[in-house]
Amino acid sequence: MTLRELAEAISAELVGEASEAEVLGVTGLETMAKGHVAYIADARSLAEGESGPALALLVPMEVAGSSKPLLRAADPRLAVARALTLLAPEPRLPAGVHPTALLGPNMEVGEGAAISAFCVIGEGTRIGRNVQLHPLVTIGKDVHIGDDTVIFPQVTLHDGVQLGARVVVKAGAAIGGRGFGYAYDGAGHVRVPHVGTVIIADDVDIGANVTIDRATFGATVIGQGTKIDNLVHVAHNVKIGRNCLLAGQVGISGSVTLGDGVMMAGQSGVADHVTLGDRAIAGARAAVMQDVPDGTVVYGTPARPKAEQFRIDAATRRLPELVRTVRELMKRVAALEKR
Amino acid sequence: MTLRELAEAISAELVGEASEAEVLGVTGLETMAKGHVAYIADARSLAEGESGPALALLVPMEVAGSSKPLLRAADPRLAVARALTLLAPEPRLPAGVHPTALLGPNMEVGEGAAISAFCVIGEGTRIGRNVQLHPLVTIGKDVHIGDDTVIFPQVTLHDGVQLGARVVVKAGAAIGGRGFGYAYDGAGHVRVPHVGTVIIADDVDIGANVTIDRATFGATVIGQGTKIDNLVHVAHNVKIGRNCLLAGQVGISGSVTLGDGVMMAGQSGVADHVTLGDRAIAGARAAVMQDVPDGTVVYGTPARPKAEQFRIDAATRRLPELVRTVRELMKRVAALEKR
Amino acid sequence: MTLRELAEAISAELVGEASEAEVLGVTGLETMAKGHVAYIADARSLAEGESGPALALLVPMEVAGSSKPLLRAADPRLAVARALTLLAPEPRLPAGVHPTALLGPNMEVGEGAAISAFCVIGEGTRIGRNVQLHPLVTIGKDVHIGDDTVIFPQVTLHDGVQLGARVVVKAGAAIGGRGFGYAYDGAGHVRVPHVGTVIIADDVDIGANVTIDRATFGATVIGQGTKIDNLVHVAHNVKIGRNCLLAGQVGISGSVTLGDGVMMAGQSGVADHVTLGDRAIAGARAAVMQDVPDGTVVYGTPARPKAEQFRIDAATRRLPELVRTVRELMKRVAALEKR
Repeated sequence: MTLRELAEAISAELVGEASEAEVLGVTGLETMAKGHVAYIADARSLAEGESGPALALLVPMEVAGSSKPLLRAADPRLAVARALTLLAPEPRLPAGVHPTALLGPNMEVGEGAAISAFCVIGEGTRIGRNVQLHPLVTIGKDVHIGDDTVIFPQVTLHDGVQLGARVVVKAGAAIGGRGFGYAYDGAGHVRVPHVGTVIIADDVDIGANVTIDRATFGATVIGQGTKIDNLVHVAHNVKIGRNCLLAGQVGISGSVTLGDGVMMAGQSGVADHVTLGDRAIAGARAAVMQDVPDGTVVYGTPARPKAEQFRIDAATRRLPELVRTVRELMKRVAALEKR
Repeated sequence: MTLRELAEAISAELVGEASEAEVLGVTGLETMAKGHVAYIADARSLAEGESGPALALLVPMEVAGSSKPLLRAADPRLAVARALTLLAPEPRLPAGVHPTALLGPNMEVGEGAAISAFCVIGEGTRIGRNVQLHPLVTIGKDVHIGDDTVIFPQVTLHDGVQLGARVVVKAGAAIGGRGFGYAYDGAGHVRVPHVGTVIIADDVDIGANVTIDRATFGATVIGQGTKIDNLVHVAHNVKIGRNCLLAGQVGISGSVTLGDGVMMAGQSGVADHVTLGDRAIAGARAAVMQDVPDGTVVYGTPARPKAEQFRIDAATRRLPELVRTVRELMKRVAALEKR
Repeated sequence: MTLRELAEAISAELVGEASEAEVLGVTGLETMAKGHVAYIADARSLAEGESGPALALLVPMEVAGSSKPLLRAADPRLAVARALTLLAPEPRLPAGVHPTALLGPNMEVGEGAAISAFCVIGEGTRIGRNVQLHPLVTIGKDVHIGDDTVIFPQVTLHDGVQLGARVVVKAGAAIGGRGFGYAYDGAGHVRVPHVGTVIIADDVDIGANVTIDRATFGATVIGQGTKIDNLVHVAHNVKIGRNCLLAGQVGISGSVTLGDGVMMAGQSGVADHVTLGDRAIAGARAAVMQDVPDGTVVYGTPARPKAEQFRIDAATRRLPELVRTVRELMKRVAALEKR
């Protein structure tokens, strides 16, 4: 692929010479190499990029000119995602069923699917076209996996779980286990059986060692295009909308509802039965204890609207000073009272 | 099973007709179906339940009458747990050892036990009656697993771990690994070998991807009937009492002691060597840094008794206003002083 | 080994009789047994140790004499680590490749390496001398594992990951998965492919169910001697220095840099692109949102220097009282103004 072809493919504007030079790959600043396009996320790093061996620089539009050929992009991050997808596609597993894999009766396996060594799959499960199952994956009965989905090693999908198309499940995730529900009978905690399931829509990513429990009744649902980072916990009966982003170690308690486009930053959490509206944002480590309206940004423990929390944080910083001021005021008022 | 028989079995009071109708299952409001008993957790949802196709409604005692037959229960959550246990029992694995499972020498396997594909079990391990091991479970040497215990896929039980009867270990849990203990020798962190083990009593549930480390000496202990949710970390030398509930992503540091009936809400944690007394409760995200007496409820970071933390939270909400008030008071006092 | 030989080997001072008695093992106070040396971490437990059946007591230097033989050590924790390493070495897996393990082409396996049942290893991977792979480990292509490294069950090492010598990876860890990086194209979140890798230096410990993502470009790096506890998340492009300690459930966001000797206590976290200098310490549950200079101790959410956070905590405890004081002051000032 030439520089000109790459620019067209990623909707970038090519500035400078060398438009017919062959592009060998895309790199970052740290790893620049001959023949590669280097991704410059920030215009302040331009000089660093120019001093390296890269063939050309992928830059934001604010960079006008350079000693190197430029690929100017309105959204350089999106452009680099597209360039890498073209030039460094993920390797695919070879199609076919490994002889050590164990397949239950009445299964359907779509054309082009790859089922790797030591996978164990239960009765009645349907696996779509071009699905890739890495080694050592356990899949229960009556599971449905949509086309082009990729399941990394050591994953467990329990009976009845449904995954859409183009889903990615990273290593060690456990999807569809029993929910954490108990009733107390006076002597101990009695398990509430969970007869529901988990439904994961198309284009969802599930991080490594994530846990998603099945519903008591009905289904725990993850909406289309939602991306979930590593070590996130999604409890039973949760409904997550479309195109949400849940960062590392987020915790979603039982029966929580997230609208579409919700973002939860790292280590944030939501208490049970709480709803976050469309496009709501929970900041890092926020503990959401009450419903959050559409489009509202919350921070803190307990989480509050951003402006309110920031005012509280600013006041908290000056709290020791405030204590001293009040002590001084008390003396001055006492002196006035004695006049 | 008829409606009348179900009512008796779950200690509910049957009100209305159709006592001899056959019950096909138990459902929630979202998933009501013909022939099923619908679980109405909250009396305010009665009308919704009545408008659906359910055969009868399982309701709290406060609901006196309805257009549908009612199963009135003092604790509807406990009643639904019992009804589901009767009508929707978890499927059992077929008894026997799968030909791909690898069993060490000098093992004992109890009658009715199921050992699934690609399980690897070490020398001298004893597996009780009716134990169910799902596929791809790794069990070390000299492990003891009590009767009727269920181990889901991808679990690791290290050498010497002891599990009681009726224990459930969900997918991906790792039990009995080395504790996180080091001594500094001036050049680096030297591992402290851990020669202890983990002892898990009867009726304990261990969540998916939970980690429980073995003790330096002696044992990390989880008491009878305690339930642990997904992604919880239990460090070395911890002692947890009976009938505790640890919600998702809780962290228990080394040498912590929890009494009986302790509850820890989601994402809460306890610092090392701290003790929580019987029936103590740590609220969501609480960071327990000091011992908590029996029956005390704590919240916050650092955790404080509930009433104290709630007063602090209320004052914190008004902190920006307080700053303004003090600023105004300073002006007024200065004006008074000038008189 | 005699008591005298043990004392020499662990650099402890032997006080009292029985220097030629044989030592059967090392124990804690809870598990004292005949012929064993009991580890007394705290001089206040001396009487308890003396009353038990232990052969001798391993004590801090402040303990001068006892009714039992003493091993006095400047750092008793380091001494017990050394004693256990000598007297209770971890059992080794027998060298050799289990017949069920699947090895890719062009692999190198060092002398004395043990590859256990149902391991799956990809093309071109190099495994050092005396490496121990427990059962059910998945290793991708072109992975490099240094000498004497131990990988526990259910671990995934993705393509291209590099591990140094004497590394320990506990059960269920997932190393080298795709990072959580997306670009929004107006309709959904587009995956940013990750072409980098993970490089783990010598003597690193990785806890159970830890997740470490590979870099977008270049490498996520864990420095020599760093120890990582269970359920920690290390995101893409992170650089961690030498001899750091990360306790349970710590979260490290993308592109974070930690210097050498950094300590992060349980459930603490760092926001993306933040740097912690050499020997910086983040307290339990600290949320580090800004760079931390070398040697600085921070606490709180957001994290602040320890002295500042402790002043804020002290003032926060008295905040409800402060509110009452200000309310009273307002009345007294109003009364003064009416004079």
